[in-house]
Amino acid sequence: MHPDVEPIAFLLGAWRGEGRGVYPTITSFAYGEEIRFAAVPGKPFLTYQQRTWALDDQRPLHSETGYWRPKPEGRLEVVLAHPTGLTEIEEGMVVDGAINLVATSIGRAATAKEVAGLTRRFELLGPDVLRYEVQLAAAGQALQGHLTAELRRVDEG
Amino acid sequence: MHPDVEPIAFLLGAWRGEGRGVYPTITSFAYGEEIRFAAVPGKPFLTYQQRTWALDDQRPLHSETGYWRPKPEGRLEVVLAHPTGLTEIEEGMVVDGAINLVATSIGRAATAKEVAGLTRRFELLGPDVLRYEVQLAAAGQALQGHLTAELRRVDEG
Repeated sequence: MHPDVEPIAFLLGAWRGEGRGVYPTITSFAYGEEIRFAAVPGKPFLTYQQRTWALDDQRPLHSETGYWRPKPEGRLEVVLAHPTGLTEIEEGMVVDGAINLVATSIGRAATAKEVAGLTRRFELLGPDVLRYEVQLAAAGQALQGHLTAELRRVDEG
Repeated sequence: MHPDVEPIAFLLGAWRGEGRGVYPTITSFAYGEEIRFAAVPGKPFLTYQQRTWALDDQRPLHSETGYWRPKPEGRLEVVLAHPTGLTEIEEGMVVDGAINLVATSIGRAATAKEVAGLTRRFELLGPDVLRYEVQLAAAGQALQGHLTAELRRVDEG
């Protein structure tokens, strides 16, 4: 494992759990989720794959894929692609098992819906419990709470 | 499989082969490569994962991850994340087994190097042979040939 990855090595492995989504323009919903972080030999980043599913019939809902790039002094850069036709760069800090990220660049394919802003906070609640919150500005709404989930590590990676 | 995926269903599965990279600012290099395209039940896109390695010692080189979104009338949107700290949206057309894409949006994390432009052409040379070319504008250079590779389907997916 590349030494630069150490500040976020606590994320390595697979995480599973459930979350809840709310927003003024949609019906609230619950979802199952799996996130996988993996190291690549000699590389200063982790790979990231995320997918969610409906709790009633397990049909696929959202997914995301990308890379997490730790930088000096606790800084973190995250680059993501979304199947909704968006790309996203998030930047922030890792401090004591908590990660705060703000979207600094959101790219949009011709037919994709606009997302004006997004923040994420991840917090390690115990060695194998990860909680996150996503705030979203979209559909003409101000930045506000959208997703919360709690995941347990199911594989050390 | 979602019916919208049909125009690019010929990509499904895993592809392996070798390529060559050239650019005025670097030493030319050869690489091994694997690309995987997969469908998600009921979803109008394919997942895309790519990685390359050095031919001498198999050490990992580049990788990319994202989603390919076919649209009506042969249009195609591709959203990508790169571990170099870049995100990329490419848009173009699928015509008779040939895909031409142009980067319409390139996002850049704070510490990433700038890429000014990129185009890709994929061409199916036979049912299981895929060739591509990438043109790149970066490091102050004009858009020009950067990568060529020929891959064979090794898994139907």
